[in-house]
Amino acid sequence: MFRHVALFRFVPEATNEQRQAAVEGLRGLPALIPELIDYRVGPDAGLGADNFDLAVVADFARPEHYDVYVAHTAHEAIASTLVRPILAARAAVQYEC
Amino acid sequence: MFRHVALFRFVPEATNEQRQAAVEGLRGLPALIPELIDYRVGPDAGLGADNFDLAVVADFARPEHYDVYVAHTAHEAIASTLVRPILAARAAVQYEC
Repeated sequence: MFRHVALFRFVPEATNEQRQAAVEGLRGLPALIPELIDYRVGPDAGLGADNFDLAVVADFARPEHYDVYVAHTAHEAIASTLVRPILAARAAVQYEC
Repeated sequence: MFRHVALFRFVPEATNEQRQAAVEGLRGLPALIPELIDYRVGPDAGLGADNFDLAVVADFARPEHYDVYVAHTAHEAIASTLVRPILAARAAVQYEC
């Protein structure tokens, strides 16, 4: 399995509506991108003081499917309209697992 | 399910042996901490220029089990001896999924 992990920190001015729209937009992607065999998006539970705000973990059968996901117009639309406008920091890793 | 995600960036001086020892040490934890129902640790595949170096994704049945993991002596031993000495940055999120 090939896994993509991305953690996002939002700008302090990001509203709850904007944060929720990012979560819901991302959660719609598996219906549009069949290469996503498992896709779990959620806001941080608030257990750690320095935590980031949002997690995305995407599982693919093969590394090439990660490229399909990144380049997919639906993913790009959500990223550009709902995530990047409120983004302060992003940390990512892709790995075989 | 309750998921813990942590991404680590290592200091540039970290040797390949140190990086590998961190991976192997972490991968030994599921045998010692039964609350880890799925635990996938791996080095970044090198697809993104700004990526972090190592991913840990830990799945638990319940949020309290994350606390058990964090406080477990085996986890603390690996973190303090193999991860923190070469750590430059860490990003984490825990979330229901």
